[in-house]
Amino acid sequence: MKMNPKMNKDIREDARVIIDGALSRVMPDAAVAAALAGRTFDRTSGKVSGKTPDKGKLLLVAAGKAAWQMAKAASDALGDRISGGVCVTKYDHVKGEIPNVTCFEAGHPVPDENSFRGTQAAIDLVSGLTEKDTVLFLLSGGGSALFEKPLIPGEELADITKQLLACGADITEMNTVRKRLSAVKGGRFAKLCEPAHVFSIVLSDILGDPLDMIASGPAYPDASTCADARRIIEKYGLRLSVDALALMEVETPKELTNVETVITGSVRNLCAAAEEICRDLGYETIYLTDRLACEAREAGAFLAAIARSHQNTGRSLAFIAGGETVVHLTGHGKGGRNQELALAAAEGIAGLPGTLIFSVGSDGTDGPTDAAGGICNGETKRILAEKGIDIYETLRDNNAYAALKEAGGLVVTGPTGTNVNDLAVLLIRDRIKWAELRPRRAGGPE
Amino acid sequence: MKMNPKMNKDIREDARVIIDGALSRVMPDAAVAAALAGRTFDRTSGKVSGKTPDKGKLLLVAAGKAAWQMAKAASDALGDRISGGVCVTKYDHVKGEIPNVTCFEAGHPVPDENSFRGTQAAIDLVSGLTEKDTVLFLLSGGGSALFEKPLIPGEELADITKQLLACGADITEMNTVRKRLSAVKGGRFAKLCEPAHVFSIVLSDILGDPLDMIASGPAYPDASTCADARRIIEKYGLRLSVDALALMEVETPKELTNVETVITGSVRNLCAAAEEICRDLGYETIYLTDRLACEAREAGAFLAAIARSHQNTGRSLAFIAGGETVVHLTGHGKGGRNQELALAAAEGIAGLPGTLIFSVGSDGTDGPTDAAGGICNGETKRILAEKGIDIYETLRDNNAYAALKEAGGLVVTGPTGTNVNDLAVLLIRDRIKWAELRPRRAGGPE
Repeated sequence: MKMNPKMNKDIREDARVIIDGALSRVMPDAAVAAALAGRTFDRTSGKVSGKTPDKGKLLLVAAGKAAWQMAKAASDALGDRISGGVCVTKYDHVKGEIPNVTCFEAGHPVPDENSFRGTQAAIDLVSGLTEKDTVLFLLSGGGSALFEKPLIPGEELADITKQLLACGADITEMNTVRKRLSAVKGGRFAKLCEPAHVFSIVLSDILGDPLDMIASGPAYPDASTCADARRIIEKYGLRLSVDALALMEVETPKELTNVETVITGSVRNLCAAAEEICRDLGYETIYLTDRLACEAREAGAFLAAIARSHQNTGRSLAFIAGGETVVHLTGHGKGGRNQELALAAAEGIAGLPGTLIFSVGSDGTDGPTDAAGGICNGETKRILAEKGIDIYETLRDNNAYAALKEAGGLVVTGPTGTNVNDLAVLLIRDRIKWAELRPRRAGGPE
Repeated sequence: MKMNPKMNKDIREDARVIIDGALSRVMPDAAVAAALAGRTFDRTSGKVSGKTPDKGKLLLVAAGKAAWQMAKAASDALGDRISGGVCVTKYDHVKGEIPNVTCFEAGHPVPDENSFRGTQAAIDLVSGLTEKDTVLFLLSGGGSALFEKPLIPGEELADITKQLLACGADITEMNTVRKRLSAVKGGRFAKLCEPAHVFSIVLSDILGDPLDMIASGPAYPDASTCADARRIIEKYGLRLSVDALALMEVETPKELTNVETVITGSVRNLCAAAEEICRDLGYETIYLTDRLACEAREAGAFLAAIARSHQNTGRSLAFIAGGETVVHLTGHGKGGRNQELALAAAEGIAGLPGTLIFSVGSDGTDGPTDAAGGICNGETKRILAEKGIDIYETLRDNNAYAALKEAGGLVVTGPTGTNVNDLAVLLIRDRIKWAELRPRRAGGPE
C-alpha cells in the first residue's frame, strides 16, 4: 500500500502547509539568504562564485519596499564583511539599525526629497571603487520612486509624469522617457559603480520578471533608444524643457559587463516552492503557469473546470497557477482578486469531494481587506446557499469578502512583508487514498 | 537523438492533423461504429457483450439531429440483423433510405406533429417485445424536441414551456416539469421497451454528459421527484390544467434494469482523441479539462499564460481543453466563441516561437460564421498590428472573424454533421527539436 506519509487528514491543513511554506520561501530575508547561500564575499575563503571577487570592499545598496528586510538579511549573513551601505525604503519600513548601513525612509509612490537624498548617498558610496570591489545591490518593488535622482528639477519630472499619464502612454513608453531623466535608472546606477562588480539580488513584483522594468532597472541594460524616446514625445505632443529635451539624446547603457543578477523572490519562486511542497505532501503536481493575468473569476472557473475533469482518477493532484489576475469592479462590495477567484471556483467545484481551491496574495493583503485570499471546497456553495448567499450575485457586487467570511473561506496571514504577486492552487485528493493516510496517535494532538 | 517521426515541419500542419483526426472520431457514424465494435447482436455468433442478448429481435430507434447518420452507421454495421426501426431527425436531415428503418423529419427546436408521429411509431415498434429482444437506441442532441409524445395537448405544452421560460426557471426546473408531461422522457421510453433490453448509444452535446438531460433522458432514470415538480409550480405560480396537475403526481422511473448506455461521442471523446493524436505526433500531453465553461477570451488568456510559462523547457507540449465557453456580446462584429478564444490568446502568446493555440467547434460552425474556429501563433499579433488591427479593440467589438481572416487564422471545416462542443489545444514545440524533424524528400511536396 502506497502511503503519503505527510498528507494531512484534513485537506485544508494541506492548504495551510502549502501557503505558509511557499510564502516563507519568498520572504525578503529568506530570498536574500538563498541568493547568498554558497557564495562568499570573504577574502579568507577559497570559494568564489561566478565573477564575484573575494577581495576588495563589499558595499551594500538596498532600495524598495522590502529594502530593510533584504539589507538586514544580508547583514546577518555577511556581518562586518559589509564595510558600508545605504538602504532606501518607504516611511515606517525601517525596523531597526543595521551595522554599517545608513537607512533612509522616503516617499512612495511619489518620490520626495528623502528619495533623492538616500539615492545620492548610495551614489556617493559607490564612487571611486576599484575592480576588486563589489556592490551588493538589493532591489524590490517600489524602487522606481524610492531610488531616484532626477537630472531635471523635481517639479518638471512630476509635470512630465503627469503628461504621460494623461495622454494614455503605456508603462513601457513612460519608462522610456523617464529613464533618460534619471541618473540611476535604465542601467545607469550599475555604470556609476564601474569598475566595481555589482551583484544584484532582485525581489520581483512584476510578472515575467522584466529586469528593465523592476524599479526601472538601475542595474540592467536598457533596451529602449533615444529614437524611441523622440517618437514617444512626438506621438503624444509632450512639452519638455530644453534641458529635458537634451537628456532625451543621451543614450542609456546597452551593455553592462560588471553586473550579475539573481532573481530570488518572484512569483515563479513562489509557484516553484508550492510545487515542491505539494510533491512533498504526496501530490502529483501540474505546473500550469506563473503568468496568470486574466479576469480573476474566470481563472477560478477555469481551475474549477480542471477540477471537474480530474475526479476519480486514483491520483492525488495539485495544479499550480501564479500571477496577478484582474478584477473589473461592477459593484460596491468588499473583496480582492484572490477572493473572487476562489469564490468563483466554489461554484464550479460544488459537490466535488476531496477538492479544494485557494488563491492568496503573497503580501497578505488582497484588495482593501484584511484577508490574503480565499479558500473553497465542494461544500462551500452549499454552505453559502444555506445562508441565502448566491455566488453569482455576490460576484456581481464584488462582495467576495463577506461571502467567504460566512463560509469560513478567508485566508488571513496578516501583512507578510513580501510582494511577489499571487498563488492559486487546486488540490484534488483521490478518495481511495484517504484510507492510506498516516495513522495518528490515539488521543494525540491533531 | 530522439526523433519525433510524425511531427510536421510546420506546427500549423500538426494542428490540422489534430483537428481533422479528433473530429473524425466524434462523427456520428464513427462514434456508433466504435460503440458497436466488439459487440454482436447476431445469434449465430458466440460473442455476447455485457447483458446484450444474442437472440431475439433487434430493433433500432434513433432520435436527434444526428439520428440519420447514427442509424445509417448501425445499419451498415449490423445489416439485416435489424428487423425494424424508426429514425426521427430534423427537416432536411434524412440523406437516403436505410433498410428496415422508417425515417421521419420533424420540428426542431419546437416539436411539431411530425415529432409526435415519429415518436408514436417508435413506441408502436417497441411494444410487445420479450426479454430476448433488444432495442438499439441512438440518441443525439435535439432529441428533446424531435422525440416527444406529450400527455397533454400540444398547445398546453407550448404554453407551459412559455411560462417556464418567462419566469426564469433554470433548465433543471424546466425539465422536472416537462418530463412529467411526456410519455417518453425521464426514463419512460425505456420503461415502454420492457422487458426488452435497451442498448443506448449517446452522442452528447452537453458538458459532463448528464444522461438525464440529453434529449431529456428517455432511457435514463430520472432523479427529480413529484415533490420537486410541485415546489417549482408553487415557486413560479405556474398555471396548469387539471390534467397536467394530475400528471405532476405520476412518478418517473427511478431505476431501470433493462438499459445499458454507452456515451460514444462527447467532448470528452473529442479531447481524448486529440490527446492521443498529439502524443502520436510526439507531444507530451497535459489534459486540462473537458468542462471549460468560462468566458471565451479569458480562457484564451489563461492558455496563453500557460504558454508563457512553458518556454525553453526542452520539451514539446500539448495542453488540451474542451468544453463550451461563453461570449458576452458588447459589440456588433462577427465572430464566435472559438474565434474569440484564439484571438485573445494571440495577445498573450505574441512573440513566442514554436507556440500555437487553436479552438474549434466540433459542428464546424462557430457563431454566425462559416468558420469552425480560430488558430493563432506568436506572429499573429504582429501581422494584425501591421494591418492596423488591435486585438483588444477587436474583441470589444466581438469582431474576431474579420481579424482572424486578415491574419490567416480562420479554421474552416464546413458543417461536420456532429455536435459535441469545442476543442482548444495549445501546442508548444521546443526549438531544439526543430532540427530533429523527419527529413523531407528534396524537391518533394511539402
